[in-house]
Amino acid sequence: MSEKRYEIYECGAFDKLSRVMLKEKLNSSGMEISVNHLPAGQAIPFVHAHKQNEEVYLFLSGKGLFWIDGEQLEVGEGSAIRVAPAGGRAIKADEGTGLSYICIQAKAQSLQQSTREDGVILETQASW
Amino acid sequence: MSEKRYEIYECGAFDKLSRVMLKEKLNSSGMEISVNHLPAGQAIPFVHAHKQNEEVYLFLSGKGLFWIDGEQLEVGEGSAIRVAPAGGRAIKADEGTGLSYICIQAKAQSLQQSTREDGVILETQASW
Repeated sequence: MSEKRYEIYECGAFDKLSRVMLKEKLNSSGMEISVNHLPAGQAIPFVHAHKQNEEVYLFLSGKGLFWIDGEQLEVGEGSAIRVAPAGGRAIKADEGTGLSYICIQAKAQSLQQSTREDGVILETQASW
Repeated sequence: MSEKRYEIYECGAFDKLSRVMLKEKLNSSGMEISVNHLPAGQAIPFVHAHKQNEEVYLFLSGKGLFWIDGEQLEVGEGSAIRVAPAGGRAIKADEGTGLSYICIQAKAQSLQQSTREDGVILETQASW
């Protein structure tokens, strides 16, 4: 009997949650993912940086502002932002709409190969 | 003048794209992220695994099936699935609806610390 090679967790509707941290729920070992919803007009109340981790923010819905090292960027569905560990960052939802986004942390410089170099096509067929 | 510590890329509406690979667009070094949309009834035409990378799939909208090592899971908004490198995986959108999802690759076992251990609150104030 082979070991189970996956974990699944249901976050539910993105606009109904506040913040879900997935690392422990999924037992992930290469990344931490948070799924977040800021209600209209609310902001992360501090600017933060990281020691060794890169972050990528991917915005899912709503409108807001992403502050990075003194610059202010407008974000909404489909905006993707990578921040190097030392970048100072903060986020605010627009006054009129909540802002849903995910944030992924991984150790900077840790990825050695991806996609074609790392993937292996199997002979197995799926059920469909 | 300090080095710019971020990159931004606009993927656009999730249901209008086919597949966007973010690593080169964002210059990320710890992860590769793809943003994907499978039209109704379409499937990834093969089962694949990885050599060294863990993957997390996060489903954004629509309904579909996630096949993993012979099991078939129903997925939709908010479903999050981690797959170990050797897991065989495939995805299919339901007949009646397209399926939007992101897939993140990071090297398994590469994350040494996260969130509270890795984060640093700065004295800087954001613009709001």
